[in-house]
Amino acid sequence: MVDILHKVGIKGSAAAVYAALTGTEGLAGWWTTDTAGDGENVGGVLTFRFAAGGFDMKVRQLDPGKRVLWEVIDGPEEWIGTHVDWVLDQSGDYTVVLFHHQGWREPVDFMHHCSTKWATYLMSLKSLIETGKGAAHPHDVKIDSWD
Amino acid sequence: MVDILHKVGIKGSAAAVYAALTGTEGLAGWWTTDTAGDGENVGGVLTFRFAAGGFDMKVRQLDPGKRVLWEVIDGPEEWIGTHVDWVLDQSGDYTVVLFHHQGWREPVDFMHHCSTKWATYLMSLKSLIETGKGAAHPHDVKIDSWD
Repeated sequence: MVDILHKVGIKGSAAAVYAALTGTEGLAGWWTTDTAGDGENVGGVLTFRFAAGGFDMKVRQLDPGKRVLWEVIDGPEEWIGTHVDWVLDQSGDYTVVLFHHQGWREPVDFMHHCSTKWATYLMSLKSLIETGKGAAHPHDVKIDSWD
Repeated sequence: MVDILHKVGIKGSAAAVYAALTGTEGLAGWWTTDTAGDGENVGGVLTFRFAAGGFDMKVRQLDPGKRVLWEVIDGPEEWIGTHVDWVLDQSGDYTVVLFHHQGWREPVDFMHHCSTKWATYLMSLKSLIETGKGAAHPHDVKIDSWD
């Protein structure tokens, strides 16, 4: 099993980052404008849609200002059963975000793509909090011919 | 052992991408302006310097237009002995770049940082080839308070 790991430091409060990971308005501001569902309660399901498909995430753990854990329950075969884990730690002016997309069965080319793509979306989240404007799909940064 | 994996698709030839991974002029255009050494011969050593330190890479394998493999021989302790492996595949208008930074002993916070940072530098490489202008250090995209 192999993981995608990332880290960004966001000038903003952990509460603001947490809100952008749990509320559909925040999520629609940095990941995809087509976001729906309930990300604010454990057991809730969020649906994220893109031009080429999408992901359904069940909220598995929430610790306000500290952690958000999703399980992928629908989407591309490689994603189903994987977990997306967000760990937040406010330190001075920054909130450090440690990101883990865990449980990939094989390091397929699609995983390489998703790793780079997650980085661009984390930069979009950072921009949303710091400037009020993210780069959510369909206005996302394109990284390759699959985009 | 854990790896950093990425993928970008660059509108350009594999020869152009290969040149930007082996020649100091190309490397200085997307990674760090303070690049020196010999990246064009197996056994050559490249030195990359940043405000906070740098890396020395020994060229371990070269396959023109297809692959570049470096071993980190000096730099931060976590990097020494790891390998940076670039696999290129031209397909139509695109050159697909599969990137692997392999051999990390532990998934420390610094590895999370480096994963995201590599993604921004891969986007810088893509931009260099596609537009003639990358974002090499010190003009690199800042991702956190370590930058």
